Amino acid sequence: MPKYVFHYFPIKALGESVRLLLAYGGEGFEDHRIDFEDWPAFKPNTPFGQMPVLEFDGKQYAQSLAIARYLGHKYGLAGETLEDNLEIDQNVYLINDLRTKAASANYEKDEVIKEQKYKEFSEVFSDSLERLNALVVKNNGYVALGKLTWADFMFAGLFDYLSAMMRMPDLGEKYPALQQVKDRVYSIPKVKAYSDAVTA
Amino acid sequence: MPKYVFHYFPIKALGESVRLLLAYGGEGFEDHRIDFEDWPAFKPNTPFGQMPVLEFDGKQYAQSLAIARYLGHKYGLAGETLEDNLEIDQNVYLINDLRTKAASANYEKDEVIKEQKYKEFSEVFSDSLERLNALVVKNNGYVALGKLTWADFMFAGLFDYLSAMMRMPDLGEKYPALQQVKDRVYSIPKVKAYSDAVTA
Repeated sequence: MPKYVFHYFPIKALGESVRLLLAYGGEGFEDHRIDFEDWPAFKPNTPFGQMPVLEFDGKQYAQSLAIARYLGHKYGLAGETLEDNLEIDQNVYLINDLRTKAASANYEKDEVIKEQKYKEFSEVFSDSLERLNALVVKNNGYVALGKLTWADFMFAGLFDYLSAMMRMPDLGEKYPALQQVKDRVYSIPKVKAYSDAVTA
Repeated sequence: MPKYVFHYFPIKALGESVRLLLAYGGEGFEDHRIDFEDWPAFKPNTPFGQMPVLEFDGKQYAQSLAIARYLGHKYGLAGETLEDNLEIDQNVYLINDLRTKAASANYEKDEVIKEQKYKEFSEVFSDSLERLNALVVKNNGYVALGKLTWADFMFAGLFDYLSAMMRMPDLGEKYPALQQVKDRVYSIPKVKAYSDAVTA
């Protein structure tokens, strides 16, 4: 039995960053993908009635960012000082704010309001992406600290979800430094092996 | 000159948790409160065009949660293991999700949509608050780990803001365990001294 069981829907969305980190860690994990129709029955078994959930040593933990940070620190992908970790967290939250904004448009149920939001947010999206792209350029192709950290995994795992939610299929062409972060994470052998197996 | 300068609007909102932690740490800080009309001129000097910002050792850091976690770890308010910190982060994000939801109603510009949101979110607010209240009861009156951590400061600092944004002036009466978390943090002598000085 693998050490970790990761419970999430059969999509990337909020789960993929954690899967990439688990693959990188190489301790083995059960990639438990729960279909949307099976979620209501599973929901009461989760800590907060939410997924993703990471289960190990008889405990369950919720919240994707908390889990990603945990695995990042466990697998040597954190900073060496508290100030380093502050910088990682700061940049992770810049990305997370963008995700929240994009989600607020993407999951809007009222079609009219939804289109209004996409119009209203287009400048926020560009501003955030330009800021993030510049940050990555400044950090030698990484999200923080000028080296590989869990922030790169967090971003790589969110890339497709962000691109779809922002209606920006050319995200990587428009912001090549961001594409580079994604490609670099996915080219790590253990991550590539996981990804190839999933998409096979 | 104090070690830290903390830049934020002259309100609690996203800044108070950090101020409470800085007061607790006792290293001294300049509580630089920037009026709304002065913000446009200051904005270009910040890392992400946002506040709050914590400045020290010649560097500036953005993002309230990143800063709060940093100070929490610095001042002995974190867990002892990575799993402890995962639990703190998990519970902090439960609170942060509630804040994001409340903000999405509170800052809605269209009055009709705003009222719709308050109606639609009322169940989410109650569910989250009940879950959080139960979590605090289970943790002996604390947000996580059954002891004082930076998660308590994070919540105590957000309490008034959350209460206002959810239009729930009786938040503490409805959820006494949550009131207890706030009161306990504000009764710590250094925190009380800061708070008394500000409200004097």
